Amino acid sequence: MARIYDVAAMGNALLDVLAPADDAFLLRHNIAKGVMTLIDEFRALQLYEALSGTREIAGGSAANTAAGVASFGAKGLYVGKVKDDPLGRSFAESLSQTGVQYTTNMAAAGPATGCCLIAVTPDGQRSMSTFLGASSELAPGDIDEAGIAASAVLYVEGYLWDSPGPKAAITRAMEIAKRAGRKVALTLSDPFCVGRYRAEFRELFDTRLDILFANEEEAMALFEVETFDEVLQAIRNWPGIAALTRSAKGCVIARGAEVHVIDAAPVAKVIDTTGAGDQFAAGFLVGLTGGKGLAECGKLGALAAAEVISHYGARPEASLKMLAANARLL
Amino acid sequence: MARIYDVAAMGNALLDVLAPADDAFLLRHNIAKGVMTLIDEFRALQLYEALSGTREIAGGSAANTAAGVASFGAKGLYVGKVKDDPLGRSFAESLSQTGVQYTTNMAAAGPATGCCLIAVTPDGQRSMSTFLGASSELAPGDIDEAGIAASAVLYVEGYLWDSPGPKAAITRAMEIAKRAGRKVALTLSDPFCVGRYRAEFRELFDTRLDILFANEEEAMALFEVETFDEVLQAIRNWPGIAALTRSAKGCVIARGAEVHVIDAAPVAKVIDTTGAGDQFAAGFLVGLTGGKGLAECGKLGALAAAEVISHYGARPEASLKMLAANARLL
Repeated sequence: MARIYDVAAMGNALLDVLAPADDAFLLRHNIAKGVMTLIDEFRALQLYEALSGTREIAGGSAANTAAGVASFGAKGLYVGKVKDDPLGRSFAESLSQTGVQYTTNMAAAGPATGCCLIAVTPDGQRSMSTFLGASSELAPGDIDEAGIAASAVLYVEGYLWDSPGPKAAITRAMEIAKRAGRKVALTLSDPFCVGRYRAEFRELFDTRLDILFANEEEAMALFEVETFDEVLQAIRNWPGIAALTRSAKGCVIARGAEVHVIDAAPVAKVIDTTGAGDQFAAGFLVGLTGGKGLAECGKLGALAAAEVISHYGARPEASLKMLAANARLL
Repeated sequence: MARIYDVAAMGNALLDVLAPADDAFLLRHNIAKGVMTLIDEFRALQLYEALSGTREIAGGSAANTAAGVASFGAKGLYVGKVKDDPLGRSFAESLSQTGVQYTTNMAAAGPATGCCLIAVTPDGQRSMSTFLGASSELAPGDIDEAGIAASAVLYVEGYLWDSPGPKAAITRAMEIAKRAGRKVALTLSDPFCVGRYRAEFRELFDTRLDILFANEEEAMALFEVETFDEVLQAIRNWPGIAALTRSAKGCVIARGAEVHVIDAAPVAKVIDTTGAGDQFAAGFLVGLTGGKGLAECGKLGALAAAEVISHYGARPEASLKMLAANARLL
């Protein structure tokens, strides 16, 4: 089948609700700092009322990546479930506006569109409380099979493992991608997510994955080691591509014996780290599907991450295509 | 079948690891304050290393209740799974020493005995990170069927819903108890636990439960209401007994139109609230199975809770039997 898309991204479709908060707020409301915790709708409403100065914006880790891919001028497809309610329609609209192809049927009934309440503390850290809602209803039948078969890379987020339907949908999507000779990429999403599904992620790593995205903590959790160097040794003979991000320390890209250590792109002031990993993956995959070498892919990832952490929100505000052209990376 | 035990308690068998910590520690280590979060063994080891001044002590919510029942001089049976490792043997020994009958087979293989890392902040709050380990391997075949059929009340903890095997074991245990004409009691364990299994808990409430234990937050989460009074109205026509605890405000006991408001028992200084709910349930059930009226049951619960919060650890240090005799409650 002819290639139509560069990246098919699959994930939990969520509206982000961002609000400033201090450490005392996190403690008072039983929020674990710096990680993602699943909550139910009742608690989501409680927290929403407790937060002030909220801003709503389309989010969802893989959806942010798809938006980043589009901002680079590459072709992205998104698979994820919302409900046909105001939040769901707003999510779909915001994604279509970026140029991403988004065809997943909206749910007519069932839980509301999911949301992620993000408390941003003055140190730039984000503490996420996620109500999965309709996103957990994604089923194998929702998958755009032709679209996935026509995408150079299928990119899935680890958060999808949190619900049985989406997990079955991923398995189906991976089969389609493999049969069409496409690459399969996974982002580990969160060290706690790795803790919940380590055995399954390790099996994927051993059998089906072509590309692994992980930050330092996630990778250490995956291999149950205490230092970054041990991670590097653990992936030493893996035939796939590992893209390991290290915040301000930049990233390390490895494929078998080929290892690149890439610095982070400079940022005047870090405002909100939400979406850094999502945009890194976007830049990296745009490079890879565009035939670039691994070092260039890493630099494109760093460029996109730097853009997104310099403002609130998890999607690029500037044109990543323009920024990449200015940096002579595309 | 003749009654042998007053209470058969079923829960996750855990070693508690208590340590003092401050709010900064909770924030730095991504721990949600005041609630129970499930973690994997890798993170358990990391946290264990990060804590200092740890004290290990047999815990597990329902096991604490069984120990409390024994301390009142009543007869308790415990069902929960450990591994045949040093922690598991220590758990079994500590329970047997209190006089509780504990016959569940230890696992010979599989995950280690579970543990609950409890960071106790200076305000007396406890933030729990639980590695379920062997406790999640409890299966229907592990159940002491004759023992449950011979217990006046089967008491199960909501935390058991976090793993599929234990959930099946509970279903089996409830069937046995019902067939033997015994009462079934559930403690909701944690508002987040209610968030995870609300639909199942509500169905149990509607169909199989005779006695419900919940604190204020858990009960509000169960019925998705914002005030305690709305909880009271929600259980107004329920034929079972609801024992609702409210920390320093005491408790409210209701059975249909019969409502009792009981004050908390005085405590010189609150040291550690771990186990307050567990011991309240012990006192309440000892009263109920001893033929006491609801108000006396509530007072026995309050007495046991006051004892346990006046020192570190979740099990009574003084003889509850003696304390109850001094207070002329037994």
